[in-house]
Amino acid sequence: MARARIAIIGTGLIGTSIGLGLAARKDREYDIVGIDKNRGHMREAKKLGAIDREAGSLEEALKDAGLVVIAVPAMAARQILQDAVPYLAEGAIITDTCSTKADILRWAAEFLPDTVNFVGSHPMAGRELSGPGAANIDLFRGATWAVTPSPRADEQAVNIVLGLIEALGAIPLYIDASEHDTYAAAVSHVPILMSVALFRMVRDSHGWEDASFLAGSGFRDLTRLASGDPTMSRDIMSSNRDAVMHWLGRLEDELRTIKRALEEGDPVLTDLFASTQLDRDTFIMNPPQRRVPDGPEAPTAADTMRRMFFGGFYDRLKDVTNKPGMDRNTDDLKRKLGVDENGNGRS
Amino acid sequence: MARARIAIIGTGLIGTSIGLGLAARKDREYDIVGIDKNRGHMREAKKLGAIDREAGSLEEALKDAGLVVIAVPAMAARQILQDAVPYLAEGAIITDTCSTKADILRWAAEFLPDTVNFVGSHPMAGRELSGPGAANIDLFRGATWAVTPSPRADEQAVNIVLGLIEALGAIPLYIDASEHDTYAAAVSHVPILMSVALFRMVRDSHGWEDASFLAGSGFRDLTRLASGDPTMSRDIMSSNRDAVMHWLGRLEDELRTIKRALEEGDPVLTDLFASTQLDRDTFIMNPPQRRVPDGPEAPTAADTMRRMFFGGFYDRLKDVTNKPGMDRNTDDLKRKLGVDENGNGRS
Repeated sequence: MARARIAIIGTGLIGTSIGLGLAARKDREYDIVGIDKNRGHMREAKKLGAIDREAGSLEEALKDAGLVVIAVPAMAARQILQDAVPYLAEGAIITDTCSTKADILRWAAEFLPDTVNFVGSHPMAGRELSGPGAANIDLFRGATWAVTPSPRADEQAVNIVLGLIEALGAIPLYIDASEHDTYAAAVSHVPILMSVALFRMVRDSHGWEDASFLAGSGFRDLTRLASGDPTMSRDIMSSNRDAVMHWLGRLEDELRTIKRALEEGDPVLTDLFASTQLDRDTFIMNPPQRRVPDGPEAPTAADTMRRMFFGGFYDRLKDVTNKPGMDRNTDDLKRKLGVDENGNGRS
Repeated sequence: MARARIAIIGTGLIGTSIGLGLAARKDREYDIVGIDKNRGHMREAKKLGAIDREAGSLEEALKDAGLVVIAVPAMAARQILQDAVPYLAEGAIITDTCSTKADILRWAAEFLPDTVNFVGSHPMAGRELSGPGAANIDLFRGATWAVTPSPRADEQAVNIVLGLIEALGAIPLYIDASEHDTYAAAVSHVPILMSVALFRMVRDSHGWEDASFLAGSGFRDLTRLASGDPTMSRDIMSSNRDAVMHWLGRLEDELRTIKRALEEGDPVLTDLFASTQLDRDTFIMNPPQRRVPDGPEAPTAADTMRRMFFGGFYDRLKDVTNKPGMDRNTDDLKRKLGVDENGNGRS
């Protein structure tokens, strides 16, 4: 009997971190095969133990893979979806880790056959360093991981991806793709541009060297995202331009409000800082919680993952996905995750 | 023979961290007295061992203190300079830790008598948490600490402050006060406003709760400074408004450049991210270094500190500062620090 197989396409920071987490699970009944167009990165991922085997081609990587994790920037992911079509196993579950979700869902609908399930996903974690050398088994621990299934993905496929996420210690957040992109633009994509703007502002000034002596942890933190992978940043901005432009406009509004407060002085200025501090401290100390139901009548995704991955994942998967006319409704899943019909997760 | 005495005015994050570093030195021949208008903070600093004794009044704190460290926000520091005048010991050395330096030097010149030495200073380190509970003996380790002596401070006084800085593991940077304020606005004060703007932008949006689920380490890092002490932020902006306004204008220029790049797409967009990444990585991995001379002919400030602090600091200090008509030229010192006549520190 063949063991289940997971393929990781792209063994950079994210793909290798996922591989490390999956490879470390005791009694695992799956093999991990990896591929990266950067052969050095693939070799390093293998050396680190993040993958069991290096694939020589996309065909080899995808052969018999029940779960395919595409961990490359958006435009490269688009190409992989196209190229993968002839090689995908029937019933395969495909997920990705791209920072924007609407485009990739559109591409999946356009390119992939009905015989596979696409479940988009996005871990809200990262580092300014890239490549497998920066990978960390705990990269996703405690992080939110957005899940955006394609409308035609079946419930078992979504559960497998939820299980993957929970196996890596992250917290799945079921969310509509366009909603994801709108909010990710605010909390993740515009911050990248702010880091870039701040760094360029200081670097391009006449006093760069003097200023750089004075730069402390604040400057380092605020410019951290400017060290992110340029291709990833470019793809993020290209595939989410409208939302990013919207929030950049809102940011400029806020900067104008702040300038007015600077001109006005107290009490406006102190109120501005004090109210922001209060809300930010509240956000950090008591972050909003999604209620995840537990108990026997609502098995968690981790349970599902355990049952499927460790009880002959691939064979069961075949059973499930080959069953004709199965119900692809995900309402059940939404209820399990404690989200309402609008995809809102807290209560 | 009376032991030397150091007074710490303000036992919040910075004052308590300084106290912890000074108190931990073996064979120290000085006592540390502390005061804070927040009695709880003073008591906590004492409990933590950052100060040897709590003072009941400013008079009591300053009595016989050879070195006075004012570690409060700028407007409170102004008041303390005024209130301290009747109680300052002859020859006392006064330093501060305010984030802006031109105003405090102006106030020192206005209020303080000729019999004392004011040496402004500013550690480029901090945390978003405030109060003595957030203090850390290693807070300043490896950080730049700007030094802006008043024109009438004598060389010994400057050396004592340099010694204090090196004793705490920080790296002194001799810099002109207005130059400091200009560059600190770029690398430290505008970043505070960016953090505030980003946090308010997201918090005030309709989708705040949904967005906050997606907020990961990028958002947390970029908004960290929005959790800083509001009074300190208010004082920074009030006492450095022109420079802050200048850099805010420059930031808006950069954001406009980025928006154009977003509209234009590649190759402009990739170039923008790639060139910024390269320069930022270079800055982080090879930060600009000031050359500090060493060898017997150029004693380091730490040597001076050792000789003075640990060989009867206070008595020697008295000798020095009471000598009439002493040379207050600091050229010697500048040479020792490897800075040229314009206060430029690298070579």
